[in-house]
Amino acid sequence: MRITILTIFPEMFADFVKEPVIARAVERKIVTLEVVDIRLFAGGSFRHIDDDSYGGGAGMVMRCGPVLEALESVRTKDSYTAVMTPAGRRYDQKQAHAFAKLSHLILICGHYEGLDERILNHADGAYTIGDYVLTGGELPAKVVCDSVIRLLPGVLRETATKEESFEQGLLEYPQYTKPRDWKGEKVPEVLLTGDHERIRAWRQKEALRITRERRPDLLDPEDASSDETT
Amino acid sequence: MRITILTIFPEMFADFVKEPVIARAVERKIVTLEVVDIRLFAGGSFRHIDDDSYGGGAGMVMRCGPVLEALESVRTKDSYTAVMTPAGRRYDQKQAHAFAKLSHLILICGHYEGLDERILNHADGAYTIGDYVLTGGELPAKVVCDSVIRLLPGVLRETATKEESFEQGLLEYPQYTKPRDWKGEKVPEVLLTGDHERIRAWRQKEALRITRERRPDLLDPEDASSDETT
Repeated sequence: MRITILTIFPEMFADFVKEPVIARAVERKIVTLEVVDIRLFAGGSFRHIDDDSYGGGAGMVMRCGPVLEALESVRTKDSYTAVMTPAGRRYDQKQAHAFAKLSHLILICGHYEGLDERILNHADGAYTIGDYVLTGGELPAKVVCDSVIRLLPGVLRETATKEESFEQGLLEYPQYTKPRDWKGEKVPEVLLTGDHERIRAWRQKEALRITRERRPDLLDPEDASSDETT
Repeated sequence: MRITILTIFPEMFADFVKEPVIARAVERKIVTLEVVDIRLFAGGSFRHIDDDSYGGGAGMVMRCGPVLEALESVRTKDSYTAVMTPAGRRYDQKQAHAFAKLSHLILICGHYEGLDERILNHADGAYTIGDYVLTGGELPAKVVCDSVIRLLPGVLRETATKEESFEQGLLEYPQYTKPRDWKGEKVPEVLLTGDHERIRAWRQKEALRITRERRPDLLDPEDASSDETT
């Protein structure tokens, strides 16, 4: 898989490519990660990356010229282009699986004071990683890369991703490791029995319990509002 | 404000503190950002950071000893401790505002193959930044830092954060900047009229339209499931 990130802050990705899972995937040639500096396309008649918003308002807006020219320089007929913006659809694990099947994913990092809306006409989708506002699309692009790359075959052991949160529609069950007793806080007895059937049943019950407690919206989407009121 | 990040990968934060908005907030002494290496607390009888999961299962689980000892080394009576884990409550802009009012926020970066559940007994909350699985809690901790720091007085111009997505319960209206005509794609006429009342009305209508289109769950929480089926 090939992933291309378009950004005006390429230096923000210098450390990212060194993170263990990412570096391993790159080394094993499972993924090619490219970072393209949008500023290199801001020459000619479009010297600036951003400018005032038509109609007034706070903040500068990222111009379409440099972004779209950078996009055309890397896009092929097999590319899927996603704009990272808070005004997008919600990115989730299902989308991560869909992205992991692509041969070429292009991520455009918006600047959150604004992005010329015409840029979206040239993209295949706009995504937000959550309902909060960030300084730029760089962290969201890293989140997408990380969540997608770890799903690619050969990056993690296959069993590692099967029982995780969201994969079964529930949060993951609680986990415990040594010591059995941490200053009086003990590991639940059932986990020490070696009785696989009882352990499986306990974990299922606990996964349901913590999902009900922390994320009732996952159990009953119509109940999403109750998350707000607790 | 003081923010302390507990992680087994402190090097992942080397570049983060250089990002423009973060660096400016640190320089202006609006925020103090500390990164604490949990491995430094893994000596003595707890030499390893992680170990097998009691009851079996894929992946290693982060031990409570090193994490809780690192936590005790930085925590004061004014600290709020949040664990970054997919099995947490959903982090959002409302929570960002709440965190921005704290004097000391501690963020524990979990390892997503698992975190000993007893660690949560010592934290004030557990948060997920979205419904997807990441390699570790480091990116989520950066997301929380970025979203909180930009809300602190003196970091951005005050007006910059008022009209953003989620602040009014809607996505932000579309923005446009020069040129008026990009290869035939034009800026909407109304934005060029200088008629502030018409512009305000158009923006309100457009914010509603794109929210309905991309995030119907924001308009009607009971309709959240429709997001899944489109």
